[in-house]
Amino acid sequence: MKKLILFIGTALTVFTSGAQQALWGGPQIISPETHSNNSVTFRMVAPNAESVQVTGDFLPTQLMDTPYGKFDAPGIADMVKNADGVWEFTSASLSPELYSYTFLVDGVKMPDPSNVFQIRDIASITNVFLIDGDYADYYKINDVPHGTVSKVWYDSPTLGTDRRMTVYTPAGYEKNDRRYPVFYLLHGMGGDENAWSELGRATQVLDNMIARGEVEPMIVVMTNGNVAMEGAPGETSLGFTPPTTQLPKTMDGTFERHFPDVVNYIDSNYRTIADKEHRAIAGLSMGGFHSLHISKQYPDMFDYVGLFSAAILPHDGAVSAVYDNMDEKLKRQFADAPQLYWIAIGDKDFLYDANKEYRKYLDEHGYKYVYRESPDGHIWKNWRIYLTEFLPQLFKDN
Amino acid sequence: MKKLILFIGTALTVFTSGAQQALWGGPQIISPETHSNNSVTFRMVAPNAESVQVTGDFLPTQLMDTPYGKFDAPGIADMVKNADGVWEFTSASLSPELYSYTFLVDGVKMPDPSNVFQIRDIASITNVFLIDGDYADYYKINDVPHGTVSKVWYDSPTLGTDRRMTVYTPAGYEKNDRRYPVFYLLHGMGGDENAWSELGRATQVLDNMIARGEVEPMIVVMTNGNVAMEGAPGETSLGFTPPTTQLPKTMDGTFERHFPDVVNYIDSNYRTIADKEHRAIAGLSMGGFHSLHISKQYPDMFDYVGLFSAAILPHDGAVSAVYDNMDEKLKRQFADAPQLYWIAIGDKDFLYDANKEYRKYLDEHGYKYVYRESPDGHIWKNWRIYLTEFLPQLFKDN
Repeated sequence: MKKLILFIGTALTVFTSGAQQALWGGPQIISPETHSNNSVTFRMVAPNAESVQVTGDFLPTQLMDTPYGKFDAPGIADMVKNADGVWEFTSASLSPELYSYTFLVDGVKMPDPSNVFQIRDIASITNVFLIDGDYADYYKINDVPHGTVSKVWYDSPTLGTDRRMTVYTPAGYEKNDRRYPVFYLLHGMGGDENAWSELGRATQVLDNMIARGEVEPMIVVMTNGNVAMEGAPGETSLGFTPPTTQLPKTMDGTFERHFPDVVNYIDSNYRTIADKEHRAIAGLSMGGFHSLHISKQYPDMFDYVGLFSAAILPHDGAVSAVYDNMDEKLKRQFADAPQLYWIAIGDKDFLYDANKEYRKYLDEHGYKYVYRESPDGHIWKNWRIYLTEFLPQLFKDN
Repeated sequence: MKKLILFIGTALTVFTSGAQQALWGGPQIISPETHSNNSVTFRMVAPNAESVQVTGDFLPTQLMDTPYGKFDAPGIADMVKNADGVWEFTSASLSPELYSYTFLVDGVKMPDPSNVFQIRDIASITNVFLIDGDYADYYKINDVPHGTVSKVWYDSPTLGTDRRMTVYTPAGYEKNDRRYPVFYLLHGMGGDENAWSELGRATQVLDNMIARGEVEPMIVVMTNGNVAMEGAPGETSLGFTPPTTQLPKTMDGTFERHFPDVVNYIDSNYRTIADKEHRAIAGLSMGGFHSLHISKQYPDMFDYVGLFSAAILPHDGAVSAVYDNMDEKLKRQFADAPQLYWIAIGDKDFLYDANKEYRKYLDEHGYKYVYRESPDGHIWKNWRIYLTEFLPQLFKDN
């Protein structure tokens, strides 16, 4: 058979490279490039553009006008065309963090075409890069035992539909018979069941913190809080329908009402410890709102509650039994108080005042909670940090 | 508590929209837009570009020069600036298919910034859209029971590393005690453990074909064939390192040698029927090469073998016991011949001649196989079709 030998490996490689040259065009550039001092250079080829800018959370924030006042938004920096005709910008030395950015070419938002690491955030694509060190090491994939991350469809009798969620089972789950506590982790408005495992780096945080012995092994369930959808954009029978930020039925009580279906599914299909002492719920923004209202609606379900930059109260038009009698329900919840009721928010968050008023209410009623205030606003950086701080407090005494 | 009510839902929505207007810039456009006759309009805002083109597999192919001759490559079409300053191109009426495309702005490859549905293919990002109907309905997410798709890390004693793979368990797997056959499905050069579930739409194909009763419920295992990596780019301890097409150790016998570790892991951790009659292996291109050599190296392991546009023989420099004594090993494999040895290739594939010679060899030795020749070349369209044709032939008589 010797005569048949083809240089097939080489052929495939050259073939692919050839295709690249023909189809990609332009110089091959590296972007982003992280330097030894943790400054980062961004590059883009746009020969006829009049301006190319980079915007992202690695830049100092800028104040942005909104109908609700001025709020922090990612900064924008001008890139400069170098001698090779490549637009470039080099950042200051950056502290450890997972950063997001995109380009603006003549004012039009455009992903960095040289960076294949992209995450959809709500209705747009953002590029990501990571600066090592400090708490950002929790966000890296390290050489530690890894849990399994599954996309699971559960049936909701309450809604009459099947819905998609992300389930993390810790390393070793498949290889033993033990039962685990469960943490329900909820996303914000416009997010979906992929948000916490992608921009949130939750599965990396869990792998790393469990490996270091800082966090109890646990099952983590990341649901989709938008009950008008079965799952994330592109992952349902709607096909490749563009996502929208105008979502119906996100904060009208429906998600909260259906939540026992999720808990029942998990308890029926995973080796859980199915009691209040071994269940936690937390969420960011709208997910914090959901955590607040689910935990008070079902006061015997969760012993750990986390509100990360949470919205607090339903909007005026929301009519649901879930939102009725809040005072009585909170009284009932705190009569057999959660082991941990954790409220965290950034000092520049547009929900800061709402949280302040809620804390005042809790104080006035003598309801115990732990409060954590961080710098910055309504951003993923904070939510990832809150996650690393919330997790070690769970299930320790059980 | 009534006085605390905030229009939080509305606030969040408006806030997000505001951020969009400030940061995105330019008009909000729809791209791609599918019309009722299945033509598709692509749009891009690039005010100062001198040319914007679209390239993709929905266009008639063009011949491309490579060191190995002329091969088909996706066509390129010029877009035209309309009265609003938006570049546009409308395709012919398209037949049902999952299509990929990108833009070329002044010759530089650029994803469509209006289409968040993007898939990384080897070292670049490609946008996708789907035209309904015919076999493309298998690629859609339909309202049928869905299997679970998991990212699982397995340990390989042979390699001394943990590695990442995708495991599909069929709908109902969690809810019963039955044991299932297993299909090992391998990607091509430059692909990874995500390739078959993303561009390959394998999990949708399985959900749909199982729901229609056309395919036996089975576990499907999609490995990573590049043993120099633990998993896909961005999913390993290398972090966000740009992927490369220059991969070492992809076709040097190492992957084949380690393969029993995969099978052992699956048989130990899933409810499998752990015998030859209930195992299948198939792959595209390099994955077809792997399927050929794994199945002959371990002749008692697989009763169903699929070579989809397969590379056949190792390149000249590949030294591995796996590639020694091919004649004897094939003789041994076909002495207890697989129930199905299925060879499929496109009539324009650059591996066509290599497959023709291999078929001649099989014919000369009286080794039975089934041959399927399709139009077109070395493209995903063919591999998805081959998958829909291969699956119904598996495990039917067991």
